[in-house]
Amino acid sequence: MAVNLSAPSALHPVAGVRIGVAEAGIRKANRKDLTVFLLEPGTAVAGVFTKNRFSAAPVQVCRAHLARGDIRAMVINTGNANAGTGEDGLARARATCAVAGGLLGVAPGQVLPFSTGVIMEPLPLDRIEAGLPAAIADARADHWLRAAEAIMTTDTLPKAFSRQLQVDGVTVTVTGISKGAGMIRPNMATMLGFLATDACIEAKLLPELALELAEGSFNRVTVDGDTSTNDSFIVAATSQAQHAAIASWDTPAGKAVKDAMLEVSRLLAQAIVRDGEGATKFITVRVEGGASAAECRLVAYAIAHSPLVKTAFFASDPNLGRILAAVGYAGIEDLDQTRIELHLDDVHVATKGGRNPAYREEDGQRVMKQSEITVRVGLGRGTAADQVWTCDFSHDYVTINADYRS
Amino acid sequence: MAVNLSAPSALHPVAGVRIGVAEAGIRKANRKDLTVFLLEPGTAVAGVFTKNRFSAAPVQVCRAHLARGDIRAMVINTGNANAGTGEDGLARARATCAVAGGLLGVAPGQVLPFSTGVIMEPLPLDRIEAGLPAAIADARADHWLRAAEAIMTTDTLPKAFSRQLQVDGVTVTVTGISKGAGMIRPNMATMLGFLATDACIEAKLLPELALELAEGSFNRVTVDGDTSTNDSFIVAATSQAQHAAIASWDTPAGKAVKDAMLEVSRLLAQAIVRDGEGATKFITVRVEGGASAAECRLVAYAIAHSPLVKTAFFASDPNLGRILAAVGYAGIEDLDQTRIELHLDDVHVATKGGRNPAYREEDGQRVMKQSEITVRVGLGRGTAADQVWTCDFSHDYVTINADYRS
Repeated sequence: MAVNLSAPSALHPVAGVRIGVAEAGIRKANRKDLTVFLLEPGTAVAGVFTKNRFSAAPVQVCRAHLARGDIRAMVINTGNANAGTGEDGLARARATCAVAGGLLGVAPGQVLPFSTGVIMEPLPLDRIEAGLPAAIADARADHWLRAAEAIMTTDTLPKAFSRQLQVDGVTVTVTGISKGAGMIRPNMATMLGFLATDACIEAKLLPELALELAEGSFNRVTVDGDTSTNDSFIVAATSQAQHAAIASWDTPAGKAVKDAMLEVSRLLAQAIVRDGEGATKFITVRVEGGASAAECRLVAYAIAHSPLVKTAFFASDPNLGRILAAVGYAGIEDLDQTRIELHLDDVHVATKGGRNPAYREEDGQRVMKQSEITVRVGLGRGTAADQVWTCDFSHDYVTINADYRS
Repeated sequence: MAVNLSAPSALHPVAGVRIGVAEAGIRKANRKDLTVFLLEPGTAVAGVFTKNRFSAAPVQVCRAHLARGDIRAMVINTGNANAGTGEDGLARARATCAVAGGLLGVAPGQVLPFSTGVIMEPLPLDRIEAGLPAAIADARADHWLRAAEAIMTTDTLPKAFSRQLQVDGVTVTVTGISKGAGMIRPNMATMLGFLATDACIEAKLLPELALELAEGSFNRVTVDGDTSTNDSFIVAATSQAQHAAIASWDTPAGKAVKDAMLEVSRLLAQAIVRDGEGATKFITVRVEGGASAAECRLVAYAIAHSPLVKTAFFASDPNLGRILAAVGYAGIEDLDQTRIELHLDDVHVATKGGRNPAYREEDGQRVMKQSEITVRVGLGRGTAADQVWTCDFSHDYVTINADYRS
């Protein structure tokens, strides 16, 4: 039951990108579980990956291949994360690239592998090998929705967004897909996010752009605080659109393209929260008045990860002292509780660290019943601010995660 | 449904300590919700308190009063935490001490106040004032069980333990009580823990002893990772036992007394986990082979707080890759995943960061079904070790916390 999230619509193909999907039977039969992205020569690709020190084998291989550049294909499997699999897992991730490269006539190093699913199980290489020809044969430019469906695991809806804009009189497209619903506290990107544009962007701008997009989107969402082993966010610019190459973001064209890419990235990231395991509410936690953006994030994540806060949201119970408690243990050593302000949407709940005398329980109750809620905390320490997006914590989260493998 | 926890039995009174309880109607009628401890002159008292920067008013008052010394009484109320209550809350906590001091003929500064319950509601001082005479009139040496019951909130069982030992041919008693079941990630002590002994201990040893006992007990348990605003752990030594005063822990008598106090502290702390909200399993997370005890704790807490790990334990599902993922995001920047070992009790699950080839799923399944489980992680970085105790994460946790105020 996703929160205010609909099935994708109006997905525009991106010139230079073709996508194919197959049923490889990786974990279960009759499920689309293998996806390939084929990229035209000249496509610039950059990625941002999990900071989990138990990063999965495909993440390690992606990092190495991206360092060499000239990426031509991506292979994504669900049903198995190929994480916690040691040297053998690395060999299987590399073999996936070799098999795909052989079929496509490119070097193994020009292929990026991605896996998502259960941790610590051997990747069934034989099934991927058997499924790849069908996936490649299926490749078409208008298969974005099909790919968004094929990379789902516990997601209840495919996640895909698309925007078009005009640059120098030329139509530029930005389209992306993402997946993920649990083990979500991206510290680099979500489980998996792929964003492509046909905009003509100088290749050297891509790595920093990918970071900036992740910081404004996937690195600001959390479902359960569990940073996955496989988080990967990939940005590809095919440069197929016939406008003057973007060499800087400080131009009208650069700004417009980046804004569109950020918008799609943010929609993709927020979609993961909206479809968070068991989610019934979408919550924006905004922390203002900090001495630094970093300490604002610390407080925002403490609130967004607190099981007590999240269950109160699930219950629509304005037990808002729990938010103050989370502010208190977030880790700001010299926090002065007498300067803390708390708003729930437009309701001023706490002032100077205590209950606002004008606060009425029924006002808190009214906001708590909404499906979209903004928690706003003022720290009274400076002018910095930051925000994260999260969901509530429900019975269904426990059900989903207690039954995931069965 | 507490995990292997029974109702207290054989609680020995501590000479120099009397306890009284009353029904003050603080939040609900017909509930024992007000407790007083009366301490004989000469009792040394020390405390360890929450590190939450939103520490409750009574915690702030306790710190101030303990700094002055010569404590003669403690007043504990449930039903209201007097936290997030600003200056008004401080005034009410001080007024509680003034009223109790007036009734007992001691100074307000010789009284310690404690509160537990809902945050950000005004403390009903009038009801505490009205209830105190009855609580004081009720004071008796053998009321430890009654006190353990009166300080309960979402606890399903009272928590109290007692030990006796011989020092110089004299019987010495150590008895304690604790409460707490949610908002438990003590970073100082649990919600509330009170430990008393009639041992004759030099007063100057108490503050450090309280810290050491907390470090070996309350500071090693977690239920949901939410550090409360009110955590308080108090150690009182009445010196009523007629043995030579303990001036150092490096003597047989000192060691024996401290061991008994640590044992009771640990039982009280573990009882909180066993009675953790919704708990069905008691889990010891031991991390070995660290470069420091601090990094072992970091990893142990990451595992103990992971909702994914905790729901897997609830489901008895050996989805043990989730433990590796938590090790990976715990925060050790230079962690080498290829050195990680994982045991579940005697079952060797992962070796060198990957699945142990000899590991069989049915062995993991067998251990996961137990009600007491030890997770043992080897980091391969040094010789330090540490451990924490936690419980699983069940439907009932969500139910309890979604309904707590209703």
